[in-house]
Amino acid sequence: MDFIQQDRIIATSAGKEKQQEVSAAVRQNGQTLADFSSIYSKDLLPAAGGEEMTRAFLQELVNILLTYISKSSQRSSKVLDFHHPHQLREGLDGFSLELPDQPDNLEQILVDCRDTLKYGVRTGHPRFLNQLSSGLDVIGVAGEWLTSAANTNMFTYEVSPVFILMEEFLLKKMQSIVGWSEDVGDGIFCPGGTISNLYSILVARYHFYPEVKTRGMGALPRLALFTSEHSHYSVKKSAAVLGMGCENVFVVKCDERGKMIPVDLESSIVAAKEKGLVPFYVNATAGTTVYGAFDPLNAIADICHRHTMWMHVDAAWGGGLLMSDRHKMKLQGIERAWSVTWNPHKMMGVPLQCSAILIKKRGLLQGCNEMGADYLFQTDKPYDVNYDTGDKSIQCGRHQDVFKLWLMWKAKGTEGFGSQVNKCLENAEYLFDQLQRRTDYELVFENKPEHSNVCFWYIPPSLRGLQPGTDRDMRLHQVAPRIKGRMMEKGSLLIGYQPLGTKVNFFRCVFSNPATQQEDIDFLLDEITRLGEDL
Amino acid sequence: MDFIQQDRIIATSAGKEKQQEVSAAVRQNGQTLADFSSIYSKDLLPAAGGEEMTRAFLQELVNILLTYISKSSQRSSKVLDFHHPHQLREGLDGFSLELPDQPDNLEQILVDCRDTLKYGVRTGHPRFLNQLSSGLDVIGVAGEWLTSAANTNMFTYEVSPVFILMEEFLLKKMQSIVGWSEDVGDGIFCPGGTISNLYSILVARYHFYPEVKTRGMGALPRLALFTSEHSHYSVKKSAAVLGMGCENVFVVKCDERGKMIPVDLESSIVAAKEKGLVPFYVNATAGTTVYGAFDPLNAIADICHRHTMWMHVDAAWGGGLLMSDRHKMKLQGIERAWSVTWNPHKMMGVPLQCSAILIKKRGLLQGCNEMGADYLFQTDKPYDVNYDTGDKSIQCGRHQDVFKLWLMWKAKGTEGFGSQVNKCLENAEYLFDQLQRRTDYELVFENKPEHSNVCFWYIPPSLRGLQPGTDRDMRLHQVAPRIKGRMMEKGSLLIGYQPLGTKVNFFRCVFSNPATQQEDIDFLLDEITRLGEDL
Repeated sequence: MDFIQQDRIIATSAGKEKQQEVSAAVRQNGQTLADFSSIYSKDLLPAAGGEEMTRAFLQELVNILLTYISKSSQRSSKVLDFHHPHQLREGLDGFSLELPDQPDNLEQILVDCRDTLKYGVRTGHPRFLNQLSSGLDVIGVAGEWLTSAANTNMFTYEVSPVFILMEEFLLKKMQSIVGWSEDVGDGIFCPGGTISNLYSILVARYHFYPEVKTRGMGALPRLALFTSEHSHYSVKKSAAVLGMGCENVFVVKCDERGKMIPVDLESSIVAAKEKGLVPFYVNATAGTTVYGAFDPLNAIADICHRHTMWMHVDAAWGGGLLMSDRHKMKLQGIERAWSVTWNPHKMMGVPLQCSAILIKKRGLLQGCNEMGADYLFQTDKPYDVNYDTGDKSIQCGRHQDVFKLWLMWKAKGTEGFGSQVNKCLENAEYLFDQLQRRTDYELVFENKPEHSNVCFWYIPPSLRGLQPGTDRDMRLHQVAPRIKGRMMEKGSLLIGYQPLGTKVNFFRCVFSNPATQQEDIDFLLDEITRLGEDL
Repeated sequence: MDFIQQDRIIATSAGKEKQQEVSAAVRQNGQTLADFSSIYSKDLLPAAGGEEMTRAFLQELVNILLTYISKSSQRSSKVLDFHHPHQLREGLDGFSLELPDQPDNLEQILVDCRDTLKYGVRTGHPRFLNQLSSGLDVIGVAGEWLTSAANTNMFTYEVSPVFILMEEFLLKKMQSIVGWSEDVGDGIFCPGGTISNLYSILVARYHFYPEVKTRGMGALPRLALFTSEHSHYSVKKSAAVLGMGCENVFVVKCDERGKMIPVDLESSIVAAKEKGLVPFYVNATAGTTVYGAFDPLNAIADICHRHTMWMHVDAAWGGGLLMSDRHKMKLQGIERAWSVTWNPHKMMGVPLQCSAILIKKRGLLQGCNEMGADYLFQTDKPYDVNYDTGDKSIQCGRHQDVFKLWLMWKAKGTEGFGSQVNKCLENAEYLFDQLQRRTDYELVFENKPEHSNVCFWYIPPSLRGLQPGTDRDMRLHQVAPRIKGRMMEKGSLLIGYQPLGTKVNFFRCVFSNPATQQEDIDFLLDEITRLGEDL
């Protein structure tokens, strides 16, 4: 098992001398640590005789990473070691970001790797609760390590035979879990949920107006899109990118729980029609970013059906619940969607990034995006070129994001993903219960969480007696940012906050990290109290 | 150094029993191979007491990857072991792509990793010459391994402090190499060159017509874009995505060497204006995909200046030459561009993916794309929020693609990248020289290569006496695909082919793989001859 000691050297005569010299160097300090200060990247593979050095170097890097992964899972470690941008820019304890003209030796490279991890944020730490993506899945990491060693591109079967088929299997599986029958369904993995949502609009537009591809928006009527006030900003952003204009995205009201109000959707559609616009697309959200709310999908599907509009479900965050028998009913009606965004890199804990857009109607993605470049998508290849999926994409080269998900699915099974999701939602319920019991906290909404989001204010003693009103709001608005600042300085915990509508800054806790336990939730509340009680 | 033998166990009392059981299992076969058949992913971190098993599992995976990396660099290995899609779908020697309900044990997971690599394509092999991205840089792989262990997202400084600053340093360095002064320049790393090119059009459109963001293309005149007939299809694809319409992309003629003809550009611009269109954007290519041609940037810049048009340079492929003192003059005039696409994952050998869009005018990216989501981009944070670069992006979550490039730059220095580029271009010249000498090959164009692309036909004996004309063309058109098919079956080599304009299928050899030596080039020609001499 010890690569530094073993002698699998494939040295050409040219490389042999250097090889022996370096072998001596890497052995110098016995088994504990190799001396990389006289070795440079040019000595590694593909250099002649570079195999032993390559093994020794990557082994040492893996030692660093294994230590990091272990430490990240320990509660005694800090979540982050905060420094301001100017401190990092100027260099800290010899860690310099400057790019040199001359090469550094591999000892320095390893030091740089250690420093990079040291000054970073431990997103796998049990108390990293800052983002919808958190945790560090070991099988997922293994998948990524293999992905980078395989270093290939998703445009053709020719260069990615196994990964192209894995993508097909994963898409089919996800489509069947969404509830689509076997004879429909297409899709592609994308660089993130915003791009997946962008695809849904792009494809919907092409479905109704295929001439847009050639002639552009100038040839179309003024199209209207609909999404809820709690939905992700990617719908507006995509409308801007696609040349449709943000002002043509109509924002539908939500109830106090953050769910789109169907009657408001329908009256918005009717009003837009009266103004001469053509409503064509509704984005329903399954798991909103802040509240974790699920829009009423069946009611929205009915409205889309009545008005012949494309129904998209942004289940980037909520899609993971489909893996759980206990929670999947929250997405009832998703099978009626024409497209679905689902990010396994969120609730399913797959390393970043891994996001899928599923499209019900086959052929649309290809028709919408194909340009048929001869140099890449030759039709006279010796295999079935339907597997050259690259021309479905708005990208040319496309990173391979599927293997890690495939490997995790093998390692956990559908049931393992389900248990993981259940655990995160149990954490949310536990936090919700604790918050109800405590007098120093207030819930942003009183309902039991449907997803793993829990939103709350910490009320410091100085604010507890105040009457509701502008003065209290202004003071409360400053509490979360100040606690967050102290939290970052201390590095004990990381959780997000934001205002929303008329509600001043509140904390949003989200659970997607399988490392998080009830003891961390107790710590969260105690720590916020400790950091904020003098405010 | 032996993780399986060492005992750094952090077990809670709950995990201890399982821990001891599994420790026995991983030790069962002594030092050589652990027994993972009774271990499951749930036994790994963050499970209590999962540290030893995590180390043992990742160590075994690394063994597999190190063997793969070593083998990929050996000429005696095959480049690929081809199977048809239906063979892989049905399962080969127990390798099944099906996704189970119940978890597989870690022994099976490791077998799956081995099989995935076995049936894949070795893109780091010295004889993989199929793509503009090839080779396997060990430092780059180390960078990717760290990236996946760090598993974070590029939207805010809060969660990616080090990587956000590395991106800033890299962008500034690349801008200075392009030739921009220190007081201009912005940019962002993107998921591939097509998306980088899409950004250039998006930002150019916003620069001239900021109202497009709100109002859409319907509020704008009919805009015209210009790109050469040899340029990448991403300009047309982006025009379709952005709602501008492919028919408004005007294709400018090239000379026999594949360079845009400036007078044809200018007359196209004038003609479009006469038809009532508004020309606003020119894409010049520095390193075309097939020929590797460099458009005359200064002449194009003059035309853009005269017509007040945005000049973009697609240097996705050619940008690497800027690292070489010997070759950078081929991009003279690039400093006059308003935006530049540059993919370090191509000529600089960085693992996929790593692509930058550089924008000369600061503030445009932010203005064009910002949506100011409160939950992510709070303005009341305890640090300089100008470092929260995520709102510049058309993505929300963004994969971290910069660390591997930063680490390679440290390890090679600017000069090391320069030598690597020089070596690839020397290979191209060597191939060009060999082709000139051989009677069984014909060059597609006679000029010495400017980049590392070399385009040629193999002429089998049966075609050598034929007169130029349709009959010969039709037969020659079938030669490259048939040789390619045999090459894939045999697995000895991988090189691309395509037709272009009136030219029938020809081979395009590209060198970006630092593993490739002259002996591989000799092998390439001999092997093509062997595979094709009976055609």
